[in-house]
Amino acid sequence: MMKRKPFILISNDDGFEAKGINALVDMLRDMADLLVCAPDSARSGYARAFSATTPLHLIPQHREEGLEVWSSNGTPVDCVKLALNQLCTDRQPDMVIGGINHGDNGSVNTHYSGTMGVAAEGCMKYLPSVAFSICDYSADADFEPMRTLVRSITRRVLAEGLPKGVCLNVNVPKGGYKGVKVCRMAWGTWYDECVKERHPRGYDYYWMVGRYKNDEPEATDTDNWALSHGFAAITPTRIDVTDYDMIDAMQSWRYDE
Amino acid sequence: MMKRKPFILISNDDGFEAKGINALVDMLRDMADLLVCAPDSARSGYARAFSATTPLHLIPQHREEGLEVWSSNGTPVDCVKLALNQLCTDRQPDMVIGGINHGDNGSVNTHYSGTMGVAAEGCMKYLPSVAFSICDYSADADFEPMRTLVRSITRRVLAEGLPKGVCLNVNVPKGGYKGVKVCRMAWGTWYDECVKERHPRGYDYYWMVGRYKNDEPEATDTDNWALSHGFAAITPTRIDVTDYDMIDAMQSWRYDE
Repeated sequence: MMKRKPFILISNDDGFEAKGINALVDMLRDMADLLVCAPDSARSGYARAFSATTPLHLIPQHREEGLEVWSSNGTPVDCVKLALNQLCTDRQPDMVIGGINHGDNGSVNTHYSGTMGVAAEGCMKYLPSVAFSICDYSADADFEPMRTLVRSITRRVLAEGLPKGVCLNVNVPKGGYKGVKVCRMAWGTWYDECVKERHPRGYDYYWMVGRYKNDEPEATDTDNWALSHGFAAITPTRIDVTDYDMIDAMQSWRYDE
Repeated sequence: MMKRKPFILISNDDGFEAKGINALVDMLRDMADLLVCAPDSARSGYARAFSATTPLHLIPQHREEGLEVWSSNGTPVDCVKLALNQLCTDRQPDMVIGGINHGDNGSVNTHYSGTMGVAAEGCMKYLPSVAFSICDYSADADFEPMRTLVRSITRRVLAEGLPKGVCLNVNVPKGGYKGVKVCRMAWGTWYDECVKERHPRGYDYYWMVGRYKNDEPEATDTDNWALSHGFAAITPTRIDVTDYDMIDAMQSWRYDE
């Protein structure tokens, strides 16, 4: 009897036509049956948002042996929920992958990233989940130097899974990497985040932009350090965000005064 | 010399006109100068999303001694960023508060919640931050039973701060509480999340809804348990989502094959 190929659900936050998600499909085509369900256009910064009040559409874009592509007007998280609920009724995915994102999702970006939203949503459904990103925002970023890493991590996760409630946030520097570090997320801060502009009609409006600062540049065990020193960075990331130390510290608090 | 009152930035995901945020203002008016900067309408489920591509507006709604209210077309996180960057140029807030949310933000909802987005964003700016929610989705929910708890937690956090990178997710059952538990977040799952409908023009669309299941109903140390047994639940919540155990476990991984 032929062994059935593994089945991977793929989404992103750059849209189903982005180079990164198509590079990912190309890297994994021979390893698994692939279902792509991704936003119909860019949804950068959508984090783990879902659409509570918008009617969502699910549009078939492409189908061939071992590959289906759908788009939706929803968020990255909506795409995962729609795919699991509507497109995976016969068979749940063996793995969920977000990416490959055009841009760095290290440090606090993990909280804003729609690519990490994909992995987090998969992880909240107890599916082994990984997000891949490259530190290159350009639309024609070169993903080829990541191929071996992407395939290696995917193969391992398909074979062995991941612990419950842990997904992987994988970031790779632009232009290749000289090794791989398993890292904690750095403490860093976005600042100068709002730029005021004047509309031709005479009112002010704002663009959300910002600059990022690594708040602990001396620490060598962070994703920011690894990436700025030419290493790929893998940050194992938790769904359980409880701070257990603080639970203990708060036992003496009173709430009646 | 008169001591200056503390200064609190308030936002939410239900919009600046919601009953919950106005109840919060009423509870804290005598304790602090308040700046409200909140979405112009409901933004439930917006998580930690920010608006990467939308021009944002910032509209003054109300000003009186000790209280300013602004609205924005942005997300809850945008509102915090806009307020800190554009409205707090003289003085940074002593505390950031999200809420009071109409609805439960326990368990995995912490990842989807715009109210928790407010607290997380404050926390990522190293400001002591708290999210308050009531397990009642109705627009006219009764927040009065939370008054003592809200004031007590706010007073304590203003006086003592919170550890770096830790914010509080406070949830209160509908109709009052018989005590307060400091809890971990429960493992739980949303399912049946997509409902297919037929548009009058003859195409399918989907509403994101879902039902929630506590996956460990026997555990007595979770927010779900506390809330379903009549207790208020406080979950100290981390910005650093690194899974440190998994860092150790991954040291033996290879990435070259």
